[in-house]
Amino acid sequence: MLLAIPAEGAVSIPAVLLVLAAILAGAKLFGELAEKIGQPAVLGELIAGVILGPSILGFVDPSLPIIHILAEIGVVILLFQIGLETDVRKLLSVGGTAFMVAVVGVALPFALGYLIGNALGFGHLETLVVAAALTATSVGITARVLSDLGRLDDVESRVVLGAAVIDDIVGLVILAVVAKLVAGGELTPVGVSITTLTAFGFVAVALLVGRFTVPPVFGMLRSVSSEQTLAMMGLVTAFLIAVLADSVGSAMIIGAFTAGLIFAPSEHAHPIELGVVRLGHFFVPIFFVWVGASVDVRSFAEPRVLLVGALLIAAAIIGKVAAGYAPWWFKGRKLVIGIGMVPRGEVGLIFAQTGLTAGVLTVGDFSALTMMVIVTTFIAPPLLKRLLGPGTKPSPKGDDADRPGSLVSEA
Amino acid sequence: MLLAIPAEGAVSIPAVLLVLAAILAGAKLFGELAEKIGQPAVLGELIAGVILGPSILGFVDPSLPIIHILAEIGVVILLFQIGLETDVRKLLSVGGTAFMVAVVGVALPFALGYLIGNALGFGHLETLVVAAALTATSVGITARVLSDLGRLDDVESRVVLGAAVIDDIVGLVILAVVAKLVAGGELTPVGVSITTLTAFGFVAVALLVGRFTVPPVFGMLRSVSSEQTLAMMGLVTAFLIAVLADSVGSAMIIGAFTAGLIFAPSEHAHPIELGVVRLGHFFVPIFFVWVGASVDVRSFAEPRVLLVGALLIAAAIIGKVAAGYAPWWFKGRKLVIGIGMVPRGEVGLIFAQTGLTAGVLTVGDFSALTMMVIVTTFIAPPLLKRLLGPGTKPSPKGDDADRPGSLVSEA
Repeated sequence: MLLAIPAEGAVSIPAVLLVLAAILAGAKLFGELAEKIGQPAVLGELIAGVILGPSILGFVDPSLPIIHILAEIGVVILLFQIGLETDVRKLLSVGGTAFMVAVVGVALPFALGYLIGNALGFGHLETLVVAAALTATSVGITARVLSDLGRLDDVESRVVLGAAVIDDIVGLVILAVVAKLVAGGELTPVGVSITTLTAFGFVAVALLVGRFTVPPVFGMLRSVSSEQTLAMMGLVTAFLIAVLADSVGSAMIIGAFTAGLIFAPSEHAHPIELGVVRLGHFFVPIFFVWVGASVDVRSFAEPRVLLVGALLIAAAIIGKVAAGYAPWWFKGRKLVIGIGMVPRGEVGLIFAQTGLTAGVLTVGDFSALTMMVIVTTFIAPPLLKRLLGPGTKPSPKGDDADRPGSLVSEA
Repeated sequence: MLLAIPAEGAVSIPAVLLVLAAILAGAKLFGELAEKIGQPAVLGELIAGVILGPSILGFVDPSLPIIHILAEIGVVILLFQIGLETDVRKLLSVGGTAFMVAVVGVALPFALGYLIGNALGFGHLETLVVAAALTATSVGITARVLSDLGRLDDVESRVVLGAAVIDDIVGLVILAVVAKLVAGGELTPVGVSITTLTAFGFVAVALLVGRFTVPPVFGMLRSVSSEQTLAMMGLVTAFLIAVLADSVGSAMIIGAFTAGLIFAPSEHAHPIELGVVRLGHFFVPIFFVWVGASVDVRSFAEPRVLLVGALLIAAAIIGKVAAGYAPWWFKGRKLVIGIGMVPRGEVGLIFAQTGLTAGVLTVGDFSALTMMVIVTTFIAPPLLKRLLGPGTKPSPKGDDADRPGSLVSEA
């Protein structure tokens, strides 16, 4: 017997359970439906979010703290899983290619956004926010689609994943800079350099220190405890490195991904992944439904919003696809890389939200940015699916989990 | 890249992850430690809660809504798991015995509490609250201990589980009555009867209707979807029945247990349990750490608190142990049943909290009630362990989960 303790007041537990039931049921049913028509499950989950969110049913309020927190735990778990399945050496072996894709994939969309802002007569700061939002790549969406398709081990996937992580780190720097500018602050080259070095340095240092310290500790832990304790302690480590990343100015999901990379080559990767995968079945869909629910499609009817939105969408797609072709020496399928970089996801939404909150963006341009985020997020999964075809080889470790390719894939 | 969207303000995601990391690490490490010294893991988790809570480190604030919600999800998942492993026919076969234990286990502690209250000169309402708090049984603690020991299938365990569920339902009725009285309301026999019938009727009706409707729906679902979707839809069903139970005046965990009973005999029980068990490894310890953190051991130094607390502890233990001996026809080990009914857990805390909030209990008597709850909750696991010995037969279905006896047991 459990009743809400009266002193707490505000939070109704049954109401939260009801919203969670709707999110899980919607995500699973639309995810299955998406797969039935040959699309990645994540597309169905995003659509479930739009339907459950304020746009249509209004049943899931994405600003509800509990849902937001569960969603963030979901994306932390997802990136931890992706990290666990990622071979750092293979990732570094495409490092030059990934770096080129990331740099061009930031510079070109930013330049195009800047041109559009000037052409439409936006203010200086508004132009900066719009241009910055175009640089984002959602590593969560991209990684999930590649995982859904069982393609995490393809060379193109490694380039996309590497570039998306670099892009995410660059995005953090840009967001820090933009946030400072819209708050009326001034930029110094030293300040920007420190922010940039911290963001990149974190991954390198965490990886080096982690590789030397974490596996021995877990070796001792393993000899005295059960596998499920090991799995939960792996998750605890991921949480701690995520928090550490956040506290030094990097991002939680970069920390979670790095935690996965630390465990990946060790003997502990498998039991930890086994324990975390099924947690992911619960938490990860909450994240994608939350992203879907965060967009409001009702504001798209105005002609000006449609026009600005269309221009931004064109710039967003052209900029990232061109970035895929930038590494001229790369022999793989460049279009796959370009399309893989297209989704802006929650990262683009955060830029738009920051600009709106600071009063730099008009509501109309905020809507146009949102439209760009939605379209880029929703077109990438079906396009990648079409380019890559049905998953022929499930990811190697996901294989051994509970069922073939079960990390997040059900194809 | 995910940053807290500024508009939300209050909730710091990294802070929540940090608290969760502390809860999980504390629960797993103290749980393992408890088992190393021959105690059920749940005892270690409760102690981890006391250490992390306001009593000592002050690191986990049990009134934090997010922790409270995750804890409630944990106990809902736990009772769903227990229900999935419970055979209704076997439960009903000991129904008369369980009913007798439950009735005596409510009446006798209530009477003893009433005598103590009168002897110490408590007010009328304060006496009622104290007596009512003594009637509670925490089905969560009891079920978890039996599961830890791999004893869920013993005849004594079934009596305890059945009696604890009946007791929980009776507890709901008493709480509703006491809450009305302390709020200055009046009792009518009709009102009490309706509350009682609703609380008991829910389980019967849900079980009947559920058995006829849920398995066919899941049969269809199973033919078109993956096992992990099936598992999540099972959890969704448990959440919905839990909410339904709450909304008709029963309790969420009674609903979750009933949902487990509905699935238990069907072919879907196994895949659902497989999917839910690992979720439980994350959520269930949060509940027990939360229970541990909810008690404040610092107020126990006063002599009067110690005296009243000692009297209440004696009444609490004598009342429930005597109840174990009440069914004179029962051939099993009656002391096991009596001890199994002793822990008051979070149920007792809710009574105490209600009384304190309503201004009916003095702070000293609130502390004494809390002491009774702690002692009864903490002594039952080691006593049961001593009476039952090491788990010789892990519960039959938990066996097939991820590792032998893995439902919640690591012994």
